[in-house]
Amino acid sequence: MIVVMNPKVTDSDIDIVRKELESKGLSVHLSQGSTYCIIGIVGDASNIDPDKLLTFDGVDKVLKVQHPFKKANRLFKPEDSIIKVENTLVGGSNLGIMAGPCSVESEEQIIEIAKKVKASGANFLRGGAFKPRTSPYSFQGLELEGLRLLKLAKKETGLPIVTEIMSTDYIDDFVREVDVIQVGARNMQNFDLLKQLGKTDKPILLKRGLSATIEEWLMSAEYIMAGGNENIILCERGIRTYEGYTRNTLDLSAVPVVKRLSHLPIIVDPSHAAGYWYLVEPLAKAAIAAGADGLMIEVHNNPQCALSDGQQSIKPESFDELMKKIKVLAEIEGKNI
Amino acid sequence: MIVVMNPKVTDSDIDIVRKELESKGLSVHLSQGSTYCIIGIVGDASNIDPDKLLTFDGVDKVLKVQHPFKKANRLFKPEDSIIKVENTLVGGSNLGIMAGPCSVESEEQIIEIAKKVKASGANFLRGGAFKPRTSPYSFQGLELEGLRLLKLAKKETGLPIVTEIMSTDYIDDFVREVDVIQVGARNMQNFDLLKQLGKTDKPILLKRGLSATIEEWLMSAEYIMAGGNENIILCERGIRTYEGYTRNTLDLSAVPVVKRLSHLPIIVDPSHAAGYWYLVEPLAKAAIAAGADGLMIEVHNNPQCALSDGQQSIKPESFDELMKKIKVLAEIEGKNI
Amino acid sequence: MIVVMNPKVTDSDIDIVRKELESKGLSVHLSQGSTYCIIGIVGDASNIDPDKLLTFDGVDKVLKVQHPFKKANRLFKPEDSIIKVENTLVGGSNLGIMAGPCSVESEEQIIEIAKKVKASGANFLRGGAFKPRTSPYSFQGLELEGLRLLKLAKKETGLPIVTEIMSTDYIDDFVREVDVIQVGARNMQNFDLLKQLGKTDKPILLKRGLSATIEEWLMSAEYIMAGGNENIILCERGIRTYEGYTRNTLDLSAVPVVKRLSHLPIIVDPSHAAGYWYLVEPLAKAAIAAGADGLMIEVHNNPQCALSDGQQSIKPESFDELMKKIKVLAEIEGKNI
Amino acid sequence: MIVVMNPKVTDSDIDIVRKELESKGLSVHLSQGSTYCIIGIVGDASNIDPDKLLTFDGVDKVLKVQHPFKKANRLFKPEDSIIKVENTLVGGSNLGIMAGPCSVESEEQIIEIAKKVKASGANFLRGGAFKPRTSPYSFQGLELEGLRLLKLAKKETGLPIVTEIMSTDYIDDFVREVDVIQVGARNMQNFDLLKQLGKTDKPILLKRGLSATIEEWLMSAEYIMAGGNENIILCERGIRTYEGYTRNTLDLSAVPVVKRLSHLPIIVDPSHAAGYWYLVEPLAKAAIAAGADGLMIEVHNNPQCALSDGQQSIKPESFDELMKKIKVLAEIEGKNI
Repeated sequence: MIVVMNPKVTDSDIDIVRKELESKGLSVHLSQGSTYCIIGIVGDASNIDPDKLLTFDGVDKVLKVQHPFKKANRLFKPEDSIIKVENTLVGGSNLGIMAGPCSVESEEQIIEIAKKVKASGANFLRGGAFKPRTSPYSFQGLELEGLRLLKLAKKETGLPIVTEIMSTDYIDDFVREVDVIQVGARNMQNFDLLKQLGKTDKPILLKRGLSATIEEWLMSAEYIMAGGNENIILCERGIRTYEGYTRNTLDLSAVPVVKRLSHLPIIVDPSHAAGYWYLVEPLAKAAIAAGADGLMIEVHNNPQCALSDGQQSIKPESFDELMKKIKVLAEIEGKNI
Repeated sequence: MIVVMNPKVTDSDIDIVRKELESKGLSVHLSQGSTYCIIGIVGDASNIDPDKLLTFDGVDKVLKVQHPFKKANRLFKPEDSIIKVENTLVGGSNLGIMAGPCSVESEEQIIEIAKKVKASGANFLRGGAFKPRTSPYSFQGLELEGLRLLKLAKKETGLPIVTEIMSTDYIDDFVREVDVIQVGARNMQNFDLLKQLGKTDKPILLKRGLSATIEEWLMSAEYIMAGGNENIILCERGIRTYEGYTRNTLDLSAVPVVKRLSHLPIIVDPSHAAGYWYLVEPLAKAAIAAGADGLMIEVHNNPQCALSDGQQSIKPESFDELMKKIKVLAEIEGKNI
Repeated sequence: MIVVMNPKVTDSDIDIVRKELESKGLSVHLSQGSTYCIIGIVGDASNIDPDKLLTFDGVDKVLKVQHPFKKANRLFKPEDSIIKVENTLVGGSNLGIMAGPCSVESEEQIIEIAKKVKASGANFLRGGAFKPRTSPYSFQGLELEGLRLLKLAKKETGLPIVTEIMSTDYIDDFVREVDVIQVGARNMQNFDLLKQLGKTDKPILLKRGLSATIEEWLMSAEYIMAGGNENIILCERGIRTYEGYTRNTLDLSAVPVVKRLSHLPIIVDPSHAAGYWYLVEPLAKAAIAAGADGLMIEVHNNPQCALSDGQQSIKPESFDELMKKIKVLAEIEGKNI
Repeated sequence: MIVVMNPKVTDSDIDIVRKELESKGLSVHLSQGSTYCIIGIVGDASNIDPDKLLTFDGVDKVLKVQHPFKKANRLFKPEDSIIKVENTLVGGSNLGIMAGPCSVESEEQIIEIAKKVKASGANFLRGGAFKPRTSPYSFQGLELEGLRLLKLAKKETGLPIVTEIMSTDYIDDFVREVDVIQVGARNMQNFDLLKQLGKTDKPILLKRGLSATIEEWLMSAEYIMAGGNENIILCERGIRTYEGYTRNTLDLSAVPVVKRLSHLPIIVDPSHAAGYWYLVEPLAKAAIAAGADGLMIEVHNNPQCALSDGQQSIKPESFDELMKKIKVLAEIEGKNI
């Protein structure tokens, strides 16, 4: 960490900052430039709050040198993390393809879709039992009954289940019934939920918040990892911008950026990012070409009757076509599904 | 709601959409323009999901006519809501001035600050007991002990207490110990929390999410109101933009926009919005001039020793100066503190 | 266009709006819903200013049905436009690969790079002669001398030249010396420049503005097309968001969105979008997989000595490796270079 | 400037960077932290391109210590700049109130409005002669005839004229006919225009770009100042965000931030920022309370017949009411109109 003192600083101001830092067991390097005096901090500054330094007289700005995440940091664990879910791997050369409806609606629906997406090559079944909806008047999901139906679909197909948790009240149910617990974009900084998930050993699918920076996202992963659970798959799902032709702006740069900063696997959800079915195929292909470790795709047998997000779901036949193309791209990238 | 069919639509496509709408008890008006055929929906379309209509063949876009919020809508309740907290009112001509430290740190600290902010004219004491921190390695608050200390400060000063809830696990404690329960920006769409708060009768301070639209924010208020609790104070606290000289961009336009759309009171938090102490005074004054129903301001007796967010806290003496100016502006605006 | 009247509208308010519209030769459909009265406009509303309608008493909002762009609209020209530059085509199944240094620096530099990128498969040479720099103290380009050097490189390699224009003062020089005139992001709404380029018949590469919506971008194309020049290639180059790990956020969704809305070809510039060399390859591949009609890539023989943007340039050897991968992807997509 | 080397850096990498810097006449301080080696640059680093340093092996990031603007920097000119336009001052304790129609439409219109806004207290007349319009099919302004009409209105009222330039072709006309030359948001980085304005001695009103950072905005001022023209008034007019209830998001924090960074005066345009007439009054008042040096406000005698932006214009009577309130606030702030 580097402290830049403002040009009118006094020696006594500098001294106070130096003593503050030394009192924390750090040593400092002073360097007087043409205009600014700079204080370099030597040692592990991770328990120094840069915002606090800003309150000292004479401090102009504080520049961070180290990334604030540790367990998620590739610097300290250079090789890719590979997350094992039942017998399926995600990360390294293994693609995780999570497909299924936005919401679980009925036994027939979820089993039919599960069979079809499996046949096309998906290796996870996704489906919402608890649904985060902007309006309190919209369908809120089948809740625990939804979990039960997902389990039936798993029994039929063998596909591990990914589904979103919305409340710490249900953590025990999710740990018991579900294979990958999804933390949705709106809960990415529900720190209470993250802490409690850190105490389980379940794989967590951590979606990027609607307007989260990549650093904040990795810090949310760090919350879970700090609790002891390092089984995390990140999921890019679009960020909020001013553009209105898409629901969100899919940030595919996040894929290579995360791969550079962290060892955690990262998949991409083009359905939620774009918000329209016709954008799913080009963005899914782009995600694999950019190096993503997998995809999450909404597939519905009858989008017009979907209880949520039908407009961004593709039909099983389109998913089957898409998977043919994804397999070709995966091979080029040296990845297996 | 208005459905715009695409230029190549067939009569049969139009017919299918019309029947879908009529099956929901709505009547439709067809209108053929030069290029586009338009289907106007007559009746209460609030239980129609516009996204679902997008899945029908031939539908190009769906335009919303009505706002999706009802209980929060000024159309159905034209007069300002005034929220009563103990003997203090917020809304109408009554300003709520909530001041205090970012975090409750000790009995002495909170009581000293409480006395000072009261003397300067604050009518609420704010202070965090449970703290949402980006890093799991930062100070997380005194938690229940913090609530106890806030209550002591209330006993000393009579100021009602505002503090943030982060987990549904503590709702009973908050209902018992606290006067206004704050929902932080990061939890604005923690729908599980909102639903549970809707079942209480406590006043709720609902902060705008980091990148929430005004409509989404009012829909989060609607979640609480739909549960039966209509005691809501909104709080604008800055939105995320690309600008880096401020932590967030304070959106003061939200004040007159919310006042037009809704009857709920809206206050402004310049401390969190701007992130730097020197911006607090100009933005606090601007908020009152723009018509805000109050302020939330961080005040710390010793910002350099604050356990969180010291750089955005002002000292009690600065707060006192600020309040003198706020009182002058309040009088001009016809408001009482 | 649809005019939504507010719930308290009077018959006389409605009448005034109706007469205004009828006076423009349009007919209207009135439709009274449960709360709102709606006025549908029949006929070509493109010369009606929606903002002006908002000034009438009783008007709540104005909803647009038609896209405001005409010549750029795929609705009126369903087949892909293919832009011919000398003997090279861009659009349809033809990829345009534009490679070269950020700035033209010397005869040796530009000729060496031109030869190398041609050998790797580029079919255009890019290079800046006039440079838009944030600081007046930075290198501003070789200007007319730069154009001369680009022409020498063209003579050596046969590659058509793409370079940015910054001032209407040089339009004649550009028309004479250059094959594709680039309008940079900062000038996307320099309407005076667009109008003057509309009067030429040169192919124009129109970059998306830093925070332009797709609609605004197509309207800027419309400015050029309205003047008579329909030879436009669009170029997505990242939009401004809050994310700091990349210079801009590449919006790859823009590729399929533009292809749906417009017949114009669209290429992608991952170098400027991302701002770091290590992001160029994954994003270039993603762009092709998403359906882009080409790429613009910065290549420098000695990035450390580049006079601008060295950090986002790749070396000729890396470009050669990248082109091998691009060719494989192009084949899968049924495209030729 | 500070160069952070990555943790795997070799001594030879460090040496190469050191030599590069020393070859530019700078001296360096090396400081080895626990993980990162840091190179501090001593001396005026303003001619070092931080992006170029990023191309050297082993460089992880480059942190800037100094602001890149010099002539606009308050550090080197602590007292407020006061811009003199004819006999009117802007800056320090002098408010500039610029009012008038979006577009000049006719002699009667501009003279009538000019007289009214003067009577209410405006000290500048604004009005567009050349109009930047998103659509090529919209009214583009009366152009030179508009300048002539503005001059007639000046002759009648004595109010100095502010109007927007869109092309370098008309610089001579503007210098001759106009008192303050406005650079619009879309041209804030039209560097060619800025350079040419830098060679005149006319006061320039420099609007903030649609998504310009404050630093980029000050750098655009620097472009003009570097040419020799230091008569610059900045104008905040809203930035682009995702929020849709307002046209742009007025960033009032920019007022105190600019005042801290620069000595240049800054005014606020609430009409263009918000886009709706009902937001003009609260935001105008807020701007003055936040410390702005003036306002730019659209006033039209007949908004329904305005040829552009009628929905954001207020009537002369509303402007008169507003000015009464502004005068009260100005007095509190110790400012004169």
